[in-house]
Amino acid sequence: MNNDFMLAAEIRVRYSETDRMGIVYNANYLDWFEVARTELCRNWGTEYRKWENRGLILPVVEAYCRYKASAKYDDKIELWVRVTEIKYHSIKFEYKIVRKEDSKVLAMGYTRHGCTNASSGKLFKERHPFYEWVLSKIQN
Amino acid sequence: MNNDFMLAAEIRVRYSETDRMGIVYNANYLDWFEVARTELCRNWGTEYRKWENRGLILPVVEAYCRYKASAKYDDKIELWVRVTEIKYHSIKFEYKIVRKEDSKVLAMGYTRHGCTNASSGKLFKERHPFYEWVLSKIQN
Amino acid sequence: MNNDFMLAAEIRVRYSETDRMGIVYNANYLDWFEVARTELCRNWGTEYRKWENRGLILPVVEAYCRYKASAKYDDKIELWVRVTEIKYHSIKFEYKIVRKEDSKVLAMGYTRHGCTNASSGKLFKERHPFYEWVLSKIQN
Amino acid sequence: MNNDFMLAAEIRVRYSETDRMGIVYNANYLDWFEVARTELCRNWGTEYRKWENRGLILPVVEAYCRYKASAKYDDKIELWVRVTEIKYHSIKFEYKIVRKEDSKVLAMGYTRHGCTNASSGKLFKERHPFYEWVLSKIQN
Repeated sequence: MNNDFMLAAEIRVRYSETDRMGIVYNANYLDWFEVARTELCRNWGTEYRKWENRGLILPVVEAYCRYKASAKYDDKIELWVRVTEIKYHSIKFEYKIVRKEDSKVLAMGYTRHGCTNASSGKLFKERHPFYEWVLSKIQN
Repeated sequence: MNNDFMLAAEIRVRYSETDRMGIVYNANYLDWFEVARTELCRNWGTEYRKWENRGLILPVVEAYCRYKASAKYDDKIELWVRVTEIKYHSIKFEYKIVRKEDSKVLAMGYTRHGCTNASSGKLFKERHPFYEWVLSKIQN
Repeated sequence: MNNDFMLAAEIRVRYSETDRMGIVYNANYLDWFEVARTELCRNWGTEYRKWENRGLILPVVEAYCRYKASAKYDDKIELWVRVTEIKYHSIKFEYKIVRKEDSKVLAMGYTRHGCTNASSGKLFKERHPFYEWVLSKIQN
Repeated sequence: MNNDFMLAAEIRVRYSETDRMGIVYNANYLDWFEVARTELCRNWGTEYRKWENRGLILPVVEAYCRYKASAKYDDKIELWVRVTEIKYHSIKFEYKIVRKEDSKVLAMGYTRHGCTNASSGKLFKERHPFYEWVLSKIQN
């Protein structure tokens, strides 16, 4: 499995993302994780919204973040991401949040998602093109 | 028309709603406006989600807020609301955001919404039960 | 150690907290965790903002959430919380997010925080009144 | 006065910014307005955070948005901004939110800010370098 992190996106910390400690509020890192997933899919050639249009949704079943240093307003942030697990019914992404200026890792985390049939709300038990697609991307 | 503001809800300022100035970030007042609308509907006897289930949605077409003083973390906030206009195709709510501790008005604002058919996405041009309902509430 | 969860607060799901899957967006549960912490402190007799005023801040160093079922717009949600670890320099809270209507557990999670000197930004290495206070609450 | 809108930034709609109608939740446009302001300052040569470091803050005293069409998840959005008023004690920005794909204007709005002394919390009554700076930018 290709375990290298990919630089999926660069963003600027928004004023709205800060809190009264003067740092980025903890929940906002989970928003950034989503941005990383979205851009990973685009980079791999199929936008995530197209997967949703084809009846697949990926609700988060687990999320974890380890905060090491604070992001601040207007910091340029690199969003790194990789897939570390893919099954018919689930996928796991890992993230690295890096301050671009000094390459400091601000946070690490992961999310696990259920590969879910959008109409039935059930997890996929059989091969879905999404599974094949992800597999093909992380195996080469 | 009954133009009195109703106290729709009391909320506490969340840490996530503050910004690095130490005050509530401006956009969050629009979230509070929505809370006030939701509780107004409940208070009037029909939950807003039931109107959505019956095919009506109320996307915001206009929003305005005048900020007079800052809300801070953990402040108890009163959300006041009234309807000042109802037409087949639109409704206007006005809001008053008050700090409970000293009854200080922190913000005033309004939102205008299109009364929209959820399936077609078009504005209603004929009487919809929602119209009658709101009218009955503000006329007595 | 008193390991019982306390019902810290009841909230309504806001429209702003939903996403295009029609459910509460995953990051918002971390906002709710904060609400639970805030109300736990108030319930224990000293508001968290007073601890901040006395020079203690509790930045999140770790957050985890396991999502079991979806919260939806207008659901009444119970926020349960307990402290499962207290040290001079860190504290761990656990959370249970419950849909009030049917007592279904929607999510479980925890956060770990650094007990930090607000002026120096350093973790406390000696007893701080906060440590004693929490300890006294969970030991009886 | 130079009244031309400047393209300050291009962003992607995040999943977290959508609501259960499948469109961007109304309050998020105010976050985007802030992004536009931040990038306008950077483009003009002095980052907004540097003005804050020099003791000036610009709390929003008024915000308005007219929503014309919906932004959706993953849309590429252009943020256009201009300054239409500058006084010692206040500044007004106007915004145009445009969907890049078809150049459709999704929203128009403005914010007015108090040019405030960060330490005293009072509005500036005398010329502040910020005033001169903005004036020099919009007069040529």
